Amino acid sequence: MRERPARPERATRAWRNMITPGISDTRLVGREGKAENTVVDVGGVLVGGQEIVVTAGPCSVESEEQLLATAFAVKQAGARILRGGAFKPRTSPYSFHGLHEEGLKLLAQARRATGLPVVTEAMDTRYLDAVCAHADMIQIGSRNMQNYTLLEEVGKLRVPVLLKRGFSATIEEFLLAAEYIASGGNGQIILCERGIRTFETSTRNTLDLSAVPLLKRWTHLPVIVDPSHGTGLWWLVPHMARAAVAAGADGLLVEVHVNPQEALSDGEQSLRPETFERMMNDIRPVAHAIGRRWPLGTRIASKDDLPLHPQPQASNRATPDLFRPAK
Amino acid sequence: MRERPARPERATRAWRNMITPGISDTRLVGREGKAENTVVDVGGVLVGGQEIVVTAGPCSVESEEQLLATAFAVKQAGARILRGGAFKPRTSPYSFHGLHEEGLKLLAQARRATGLPVVTEAMDTRYLDAVCAHADMIQIGSRNMQNYTLLEEVGKLRVPVLLKRGFSATIEEFLLAAEYIASGGNGQIILCERGIRTFETSTRNTLDLSAVPLLKRWTHLPVIVDPSHGTGLWWLVPHMARAAVAAGADGLLVEVHVNPQEALSDGEQSLRPETFERMMNDIRPVAHAIGRRWPLGTRIASKDDLPLHPQPQASNRATPDLFRPAK
Amino acid sequence: MRERPARPERATRAWRNMITPGISDTRLVGREGKAENTVVDVGGVLVGGQEIVVTAGPCSVESEEQLLATAFAVKQAGARILRGGAFKPRTSPYSFHGLHEEGLKLLAQARRATGLPVVTEAMDTRYLDAVCAHADMIQIGSRNMQNYTLLEEVGKLRVPVLLKRGFSATIEEFLLAAEYIASGGNGQIILCERGIRTFETSTRNTLDLSAVPLLKRWTHLPVIVDPSHGTGLWWLVPHMARAAVAAGADGLLVEVHVNPQEALSDGEQSLRPETFERMMNDIRPVAHAIGRRWPLGTRIASKDDLPLHPQPQASNRATPDLFRPAK
Amino acid sequence: MRERPARPERATRAWRNMITPGISDTRLVGREGKAENTVVDVGGVLVGGQEIVVTAGPCSVESEEQLLATAFAVKQAGARILRGGAFKPRTSPYSFHGLHEEGLKLLAQARRATGLPVVTEAMDTRYLDAVCAHADMIQIGSRNMQNYTLLEEVGKLRVPVLLKRGFSATIEEFLLAAEYIASGGNGQIILCERGIRTFETSTRNTLDLSAVPLLKRWTHLPVIVDPSHGTGLWWLVPHMARAAVAAGADGLLVEVHVNPQEALSDGEQSLRPETFERMMNDIRPVAHAIGRRWPLGTRIASKDDLPLHPQPQASNRATPDLFRPAK
Repeated sequence: MRERPARPERATRAWRNMITPGISDTRLVGREGKAENTVVDVGGVLVGGQEIVVTAGPCSVESEEQLLATAFAVKQAGARILRGGAFKPRTSPYSFHGLHEEGLKLLAQARRATGLPVVTEAMDTRYLDAVCAHADMIQIGSRNMQNYTLLEEVGKLRVPVLLKRGFSATIEEFLLAAEYIASGGNGQIILCERGIRTFETSTRNTLDLSAVPLLKRWTHLPVIVDPSHGTGLWWLVPHMARAAVAAGADGLLVEVHVNPQEALSDGEQSLRPETFERMMNDIRPVAHAIGRRWPLGTRIASKDDLPLHPQPQASNRATPDLFRPAK
Repeated sequence: MRERPARPERATRAWRNMITPGISDTRLVGREGKAENTVVDVGGVLVGGQEIVVTAGPCSVESEEQLLATAFAVKQAGARILRGGAFKPRTSPYSFHGLHEEGLKLLAQARRATGLPVVTEAMDTRYLDAVCAHADMIQIGSRNMQNYTLLEEVGKLRVPVLLKRGFSATIEEFLLAAEYIASGGNGQIILCERGIRTFETSTRNTLDLSAVPLLKRWTHLPVIVDPSHGTGLWWLVPHMARAAVAAGADGLLVEVHVNPQEALSDGEQSLRPETFERMMNDIRPVAHAIGRRWPLGTRIASKDDLPLHPQPQASNRATPDLFRPAK
Repeated sequence: MRERPARPERATRAWRNMITPGISDTRLVGREGKAENTVVDVGGVLVGGQEIVVTAGPCSVESEEQLLATAFAVKQAGARILRGGAFKPRTSPYSFHGLHEEGLKLLAQARRATGLPVVTEAMDTRYLDAVCAHADMIQIGSRNMQNYTLLEEVGKLRVPVLLKRGFSATIEEFLLAAEYIASGGNGQIILCERGIRTFETSTRNTLDLSAVPLLKRWTHLPVIVDPSHGTGLWWLVPHMARAAVAAGADGLLVEVHVNPQEALSDGEQSLRPETFERMMNDIRPVAHAIGRRWPLGTRIASKDDLPLHPQPQASNRATPDLFRPAK
Repeated sequence: MRERPARPERATRAWRNMITPGISDTRLVGREGKAENTVVDVGGVLVGGQEIVVTAGPCSVESEEQLLATAFAVKQAGARILRGGAFKPRTSPYSFHGLHEEGLKLLAQARRATGLPVVTEAMDTRYLDAVCAHADMIQIGSRNMQNYTLLEEVGKLRVPVLLKRGFSATIEEFLLAAEYIASGGNGQIILCERGIRTFETSTRNTLDLSAVPLLKRWTHLPVIVDPSHGTGLWWLVPHMARAAVAAGADGLLVEVHVNPQEALSDGEQSLRPETFERMMNDIRPVAHAIGRRWPLGTRIASKDDLPLHPQPQASNRATPDLFRPAK
C-alpha cells in the first residue's frame, strides 16, 4: 500500500499503453472512461474545441487602471478570457499578496467593461465562495495541486476549474489531482502545463511540452500551456507559445502587463501589450497550418509589423528590436 | 519583483543578459563573438540556413538490408542526412554495442547508394580516424558531452561536429562544451537538444524545447532537436518534432527503423518509414508558416494520407489509426 | 576558482554567507534574528535541547488495537512523542484517507494511556480546531508546505508546529514557509527534512541530510529527520536514522506499525516494533559519541540482541537475519 | 530493447529485492554473484575491511610545496591514501587543467616522501599508461562514469579503480558502470558516492547518503563517500563526513589544501589541514560507536582542541570559531 503511485517499468508500460493508459485509477478523467474530447464552457467561451483559446492578463490585479488597460489591450489582440490574481501565493510572507476582495471586484468590473470571462485563483476553501461570486473559472495554482481538501471542495461546485500542474508533479499525479475534482462531480476541468522544476537554472522552470500530446492521449480534458511561468523570461514566451500550439495545446495562458518594469509580481516574465499582439499575429499561421482556429483581434494588425520570429539568414544580425529588453 | 525569491541571482542575471548572455567565457561560440548565424556544411547539406534539415536513420546499424532500406525510405520522405550508430554506448556491458568498423563501412556504402551525407558517433579519441574516414559529420553523444579529451581532439579536426547536450547538462555547460571544440580551431558545430533527466518517468527524458530559442539567442551555432531520445516513445515523436520546428529549431534528428519491433536498440522510440513520411508531410505547413523551407520528399505523398495530427473535435474518437502501436 | 562555473552566484553567495545566510528575508527564523537555539516544548517533551527526541507511530491511525499496541511498543523502546495520521493526503481519491475525527479521538485515547504527547497532520484550515483539541503538535505535511493560508492560520495559534519540507522545496523556500508561521506570532516550529524528489528511483525520495547542518547554521529552530518517507524502504530506515543523528539532527520521525504487511498506507517503509527497538539501542552509542543524550526505553533490551548494523568483515555474509524482509 | 535499463515498479521491486537486488545484469559486482565483501588493496592499504580508510589531499596538484605540505599534514592527521589531480576535467576550456605529467611526477615524489599510496584521475584511455606508472589507484571521475571505452580499458588492467558516481547516474547505472570494469577482468573496484544534481542550489550537489547502505546491500564492493564535492562548502564537510561514517561508508575522500583561498580549483570546498585534523579526531568516537576501526594520526591531537561539532544548548551561540570562514 503506497502513497505515491507506482512507476511501472517504463518500456513495458509504454508499449502496453498505446491505446489506454495504464495509469492508476483515472476512471473519470482518463480516455478509458470517455473517448470524446471534453469541451469546457467558460462564460460562453469554449475551450477544447476547434479554436485555440488564449487567456491573458496581469499576474496580479494591482489597480483599476492597470487591470482595465491590460484587459482592453489583450481583448483587442485576440484574448478570449481575462486572467488576474487577487490572491497571490508568494514564497515570502513579506511580499505583495494581492488585493483580495478588492481585486475580485476589479475583475468583475473588467469583465463588465470588456465582456471577457474571468479566471482567478482560489488559494483556500474559505475563499471559494468569494471567488465563485466574481469569476467564471477558478484557478487551482501549482502549489495547491495536491491540496486535496481544496480539490474536493472544488469538486462539489459546478464551476469550471483551471488546474495547474504542480511544479514537481508527475503526469500521473496531475491526472489524479484532476480525478479528485471529477470524483466530486465536477467534470469541467482544464489542465495547464506550466513548467516543472529541474536542475536547469537558465529558465525559471523547464516547460514540459511533451506533457501536451501525452495528456491529450491519456485524458479527454482540454490541455493548455502557460509559457510565462514555464520560462520566466518574457522574450522566450512567444517562442514557447508557438511551440505549444504546434504540440497540440488547446489554449495558452499568458501574462501581460501594461508596464512590466513596474509590476508588483512577475514583471520579468510579462509581455507588454504590443509584444502580445505581435505574438498573437505571429502564431496565427501556425495554428492554421495544423488545422486549428485562431482568434482574430478586434484591431487589424498592420502589415508592416515586424514578424516576431525573424527567419534566420546567413547575414541575419542577432539583435532585432524584438530582442531588446522590455525597457 | 519576483514570485519566487529563492533564486535571486537568476532574475538579475536574466535582466542583465537580455542582449549578451552573461554566461562564462563563450568568446567563440557566443553571439558576443560573432553575431551572424553560422551555417555548417555537412557533405554539401547546409545546416543553419533557411531550410530545416532533417537527419534520420536507425539507432544502430544492424545489417546491410536494414540500413539501405531505411536510408532509401528516409531519403524518399525528405531526410537530407543519414544517421546510424556503429559504436553504441550502452548502459550494460552485456547489451549490443554496434558493428564497429563493419558498421562504418555499411554507412559509407549507404552514402554511395543514396547520396546522403552520413553522421555517426565517435565514443573515444582512438576511433576518430576510423569515423572520419567514413562519415561526413562526427557525433559526440550525450554521455560524452563532458569528455574533454574527446572534445579537444575533435577540436583539432576540420570535420563538422554534432554535439548532443548531456542529459544533465545546463545550457551553460552545453555551450562551454562547444567552446572546447571551437577553442581547438573547429567551429563547424551543430548543437542538439535531446532531452534532460528529470523526476518525470512517463517519458524517457524531458525534452527541453526552451533550450532552442535560448541557445539561438546566446550562440550563432545551428540548433537541432532529437525528439526520439527526447521522449523515448515513437508516438510522441511527430508531435514534438512539429513543436521543435515551431520553437525555431534548425533541424531534426529522428530515429527510423524498417521494423522497430526487431530493432537491436531503441525500437520503442523509432518511427516506421511510413510514419516518418507522414510526419514529414505534416510538418511542412508549419515550417512554411514560420517562413522556413522544408524539404520535398522524392515521392509525392498521396493527398488521401491521413493527417498525422488530427484536429480535436467534440466527437473525435481518441484512437485514429495513427495512435495504434507500431505493431 | 571553481570547477563548475555554471552557477556563479552560488559560490559568491556561499563565501558571503559563511556567518549570516544571505537568504531572503528570514528575520524571525534566521540566526541573524536570534542566535540561541530555540527549544520547542511538545506536551512537556523538549525538542532542540541536549536530548535527541524520537517521534514514532503508524502512518495512519487504523484502529484502537493497532494504535495502542504500536504506541506502547514505541514508548517502551524510547520514543517520546507519538505520531499517527487521522487525515491522510493521498495521491488518489480512491485510496484510504484516514479515520478523520475518529482517528483524532483514538490518538487522544493513546495519549491518555501512554502519557506520550501526540502529533498529527492538519490538511486544511477547517480542521485546525479539531486537531488542536486532540493533539499536542500540528503537523504541516510536505504537500502543504506552500499552502500559505494554512501557514498563516497556524501562525495565529500558540501550538507547536511540525513543518515538513516540501518534497521539491529548496532550503530557502523551506525557511520562508517557517517564516510565514513565525510572522503570525507562533515561533514554536520544528523543521523536518523528509527527502526530496530527484531522478533517482531506487528510493522513494532522496534524503537530503546536508539540509540538517545547513539549517542548523541558518536557523535557530530545531531540525529533525524522517528517514521513513526519506527512503521509502524499511530496511534503509535504521541506517539513515543513525546517519541523521551523526549529521546533527535534533530528533527523528519514524513510522512503526505492528504489522507492516497489513498497513493501510506506507507499510513498505514502516518498521516492526522489534526492529524499531533494536534501532533505538543501536543508535544510542552514536548519540553519546557526539555528546547528545538519547532516551532509555522502559524495557531494557537484551544483551543478546543482534546489533542492527553488523560490522563488515572480510568474511561477513551479506544476509544476516536483519536483512530479511519483514515477513 | 531500451538503452536505459528499466525502472521496474518500485514497490514490488523493493519487496522482491530484500535479499537479492533485481537490478539489471550485475552478475559480477552484485551480491548474487559473491556474498562476501570485497577488500581492495591500494598499495598496502586495505579498503572495505574493518578500518574506515580516509583518502585526502588537494583537488589539483599545483606545486611541490603545496602537495608535500598537504600530504604530510593529512598523513599526520590519519589519512591513509593521498589524492591529487594531475589531469583536471574543467567545465571551461579556459580554466586551469592540471600539471599533467609534471603533476604525476610530483605525486610519485609525495608517495616516496610520505609512504602514502596515491590515487589520481585518468580522463582518457591515452593517459592510462602514464597514470598507472605513477599511481596506486586510478580514479574514474564523475563525468566519465559512462565513458564506456575508458571503463573497458581500465577493466583490462590489474590496478585498483576508484569509480565515482556520475552526478546524474542512478544507483543502477552506477553498478552497471562497475560491471563494465569487472567484466573486463578487473574486480578491484571502490565505489564513491559524491553527490547528485538536483533542484537544490544551496549546495553544489545533493549528497545521497542513502546510496551507501543501498549499495552495501546490492554489491560486495567497498563504498566510500566524497563530502567535498557532495556539498561544495567546506564547513559542511565535517558534518557530512561524520554522517557518511554512520551510514556505513568504508571510507572518505576529502579535499584538503594548505591555503584554500589560493587554490587553483575548488578552494571553497577544501578543508585547511587543522580543520581536517579536528574532523578526524571528531569522527573517531562515532566510528568506534559503530564498531569500526579509525586511524590514529601520527600527532596526538591536543585535548584542548575545540570539538568540531559543538553540542547544541539552549544558550549556545551560533558562531563558534569553527564556523568562521577559512580566511
